[in-house]
Amino acid sequence: MAGGEEAGRARAADWVRRRLGYQPRDPALFEQALRHRSAGSGHNERLEFLGDAVLNLVVAGHLYRQYPEADEGALSRLRASVVSGESLARVAMALEIGPALALGAGELKTGGFRRESILADAFEAVCGAVFLESGFEAARELFLRALAPSLAGLDAAALNAAEGQKDAKTRLQEWLQGQGMPLPHYQVLEVNGESHAQTFRVSCRIDAVKASAEGEGHSRRRAEQAAAQRLLRDLGL
Amino acid sequence: MAGGEEAGRARAADWVRRRLGYQPRDPALFEQALRHRSAGSGHNERLEFLGDAVLNLVVAGHLYRQYPEADEGALSRLRASVVSGESLARVAMALEIGPALALGAGELKTGGFRRESILADAFEAVCGAVFLESGFEAARELFLRALAPSLAGLDAAALNAAEGQKDAKTRLQEWLQGQGMPLPHYQVLEVNGESHAQTFRVSCRIDAVKASAEGEGHSRRRAEQAAAQRLLRDLGL
Repeated sequence: MAGGEEAGRARAADWVRRRLGYQPRDPALFEQALRHRSAGSGHNERLEFLGDAVLNLVVAGHLYRQYPEADEGALSRLRASVVSGESLARVAMALEIGPALALGAGELKTGGFRRESILADAFEAVCGAVFLESGFEAARELFLRALAPSLAGLDAAALNAAEGQKDAKTRLQEWLQGQGMPLPHYQVLEVNGESHAQTFRVSCRIDAVKASAEGEGHSRRRAEQAAAQRLLRDLGL
Repeated sequence: MAGGEEAGRARAADWVRRRLGYQPRDPALFEQALRHRSAGSGHNERLEFLGDAVLNLVVAGHLYRQYPEADEGALSRLRASVVSGESLARVAMALEIGPALALGAGELKTGGFRRESILADAFEAVCGAVFLESGFEAARELFLRALAPSLAGLDAAALNAAEGQKDAKTRLQEWLQGQGMPLPHYQVLEVNGESHAQTFRVSCRIDAVKASAEGEGHSRRRAEQAAAQRLLRDLGL
């Protein structure tokens, strides 16, 4: 039993060191952060409560500084997209958190180590653990780095909305209507990756002017926006 | 115009120094924090977004450490009661934030400086300004002090719930039912203070055992819980 606990701590500490580049002082705290409630007492729900608040502030501070023109509503929407369960699960998956988790037998059997909510919650709990152990500034640096792809990938639609502009698909459609032309055709060309981390490649075509462009994104909607954005640029709009 | 701006900054800085015991480095930032959107551009909504996240983390961290037995749900409920608009407005009022606010003519006429949401939002914005200027630790110390009465006043019901216990009214009622006695009578004896900061005094009476007790609180419900709590104690329960 004690041997099992020790192994759990060592595995947790090892993951935190290798994947986050953080040296835990208290491996037991990180074992708890990676322990789902299905694995019994000492699980990560309290740390998740704390880590959720840490991530909210880390991202709020970043967006506040990054988008000085965005109003309160736009900042809220941008943050929601970065700290959504889906987005955090993607980050957690990129950090290969799954094999580091402690799960109960039932969750193990049904593939809980791939379940979005379990991954996202564990990621939040790890953030809470770093905050407890090393304070806000350390957590901020570490998790801004981990969230960098999500922050860089804030989609054009959200950014335009943040700047009070319309999204690319809407602008393209309105321009076409103004020219008396039919709506563009969007077509999915390719879907890559497993169901939790898919990438879509989409084309946007305007037959009337024989113009087309492609875009990629983690959802069909985002890929379409990216394609429309590129086409707007190609058309000099 | 420039004179008005300067006066606004001086008034904001003065309030922050006197009431929060904080020395602002950038008075313009605090003028913005105390500027309601009705007063025009440069208002406090972006800072309020940031300050809301700061307060959430300050309170989450405090409760996490203070209540090691409380589960995630209980921590969430405790936090919600501390950072609710009503609770923050009470803190803001105790700090006499009203006269320090910049409001548009319409809000001035209709008494906006007493409106709960305006007071709470400005308090959050000030918290965001301190965070921006001096970092998380400085904000944490300052606002834990400002919130101390709210944190100390977390009502018995919430704390019992956090510890997995039933609230006092429920326990009293269940005891009476167990004894085959009728339910207690609650009666409001007195209501003091203006509508935004009322105090209720309530009695709880059990005719069958000729016992009664009084309780006070900022809502009728809290006063009733306090009275029931006292009566339970008097009855040795």
